[in-house]
Amino acid sequence: MSLTLTPLPGIPLIRPGDNLADILLASLNEAAIALLNGDVLVLAQKIVSKAEGRLVNLANVTPSRQARKLATRSKKDPRLCELILGESCAILRVRPGTIIAEHRLGFVCANAGIDHSNVQGESGNPEDWVLLLPQDPDRSAAELRQRLEAASQKRLGVLIIDTHGRAWRLGALGTTIGLSGLPGLVDERGWEDLFGYRLKITTVAAADELAAAASLIMGQAAEGRPAIHVRGFPYPLREGTLQELIRPRERDLFR
Amino acid sequence: MSLTLTPLPGIPLIRPGDNLADILLASLNEAAIALLNGDVLVLAQKIVSKAEGRLVNLANVTPSRQARKLATRSKKDPRLCELILGESCAILRVRPGTIIAEHRLGFVCANAGIDHSNVQGESGNPEDWVLLLPQDPDRSAAELRQRLEAASQKRLGVLIIDTHGRAWRLGALGTTIGLSGLPGLVDERGWEDLFGYRLKITTVAAADELAAAASLIMGQAAEGRPAIHVRGFPYPLREGTLQELIRPRERDLFR
Repeated sequence: MSLTLTPLPGIPLIRPGDNLADILLASLNEAAIALLNGDVLVLAQKIVSKAEGRLVNLANVTPSRQARKLATRSKKDPRLCELILGESCAILRVRPGTIIAEHRLGFVCANAGIDHSNVQGESGNPEDWVLLLPQDPDRSAAELRQRLEAASQKRLGVLIIDTHGRAWRLGALGTTIGLSGLPGLVDERGWEDLFGYRLKITTVAAADELAAAASLIMGQAAEGRPAIHVRGFPYPLREGTLQELIRPRERDLFR
Repeated sequence: MSLTLTPLPGIPLIRPGDNLADILLASLNEAAIALLNGDVLVLAQKIVSKAEGRLVNLANVTPSRQARKLATRSKKDPRLCELILGESCAILRVRPGTIIAEHRLGFVCANAGIDHSNVQGESGNPEDWVLLLPQDPDRSAAELRQRLEAASQKRLGVLIIDTHGRAWRLGALGTTIGLSGLPGLVDERGWEDLFGYRLKITTVAAADELAAAASLIMGQAAEGRPAIHVRGFPYPLREGTLQELIRPRERDLFR
């Protein structure tokens, strides 16, 4: 069976308070896609964060002493640094132009996932508006899933993704920040290969593989393709959580 | 346009010397897939390595003193450690059961990519056979591409992937180890978003996003799905190389 990823058409610019489930259902309808059991919807973090009103105007942020120190080291706006500190549980590396943080949700990424681009606030200098990640992306995914399942009467998965940089390799990669109704990890340790040997590869980051796949057709520039319909996800759906994918600090040799 | 990934049917167990291009063309024919300009074929490292005869019998390996020391620290077979050292330019981390190496090709992975599972040698104890990565996966991809393009008269991409573990996150992810005819990285820095701001995200690891997507439907267990046909890769094809994706040591804050 093929894996097919289709960008949903006609997603408008999302504003705080928008009902994403209704918008997705209208788009699926427009695309003549009838949801089936096992389908997954992948959403760019940006539209979820905007719908949840996670826009902040830097003009309203007062940097702490710690934020001003971080700003000096990173050569970033002290007000942005204040927000980064608020969204992080640890700052792992700082260089001019670069802050790598452990986000309060557990993953490691630049600037605690706070985004400057493609953000349109309600007033003031547009350069002053930034977008924070959803407060609880697993919960965001679960709420969306509940509405989509209620409307379709199908068993679905919902995945929320962002693009993260990586150790060792260049280029950003679509990566899971929240999910509901599909596995984060798939454990294949018990499985046997064609010769009856046990497999060496232990667990597959299935949700992150799907995140990367969806990111590939979202692209970065077009906010017009922030939602992807997936058919043919090859593993059984089950309840899942972002936390499956987070490597515990004590098991991380590169933090 | 959708992105569609289809496992190629009927790929047999590959043996040293097999002509992979002929096998892929026969499978495409069986699946009634007519190649189009812009299509990409993604291959599991295993079938490329086997076709190239990269099987080694540990019974024929004599561990050096350095390999015996690495074996003591990692609690791995000293003969396997000898091969890992031969395939690496640096050993980054060692723990009991774990060796993280910088492969001579530049990427960072466990055991220098040497695989024990699903390997069938010609004789002797089957547990003694291991499989090394292709000598030069970019060249392997280029040679395959040349044959597939000659047969189809279409402009194609070929991607060779393995599954790698990651810093910070659990679970293995399909990852590029060689490519020909498609971009490793796509630079979107010049692009503007919907509001005319310049994008913050700089470069996208397009080949690795495709590697993860293909890995998702390959799975780990089944050597029966080691080749994936991709239609709808959303970036223009161009010449590419693995080296685009390797973060130079001096730009890596986590090595």
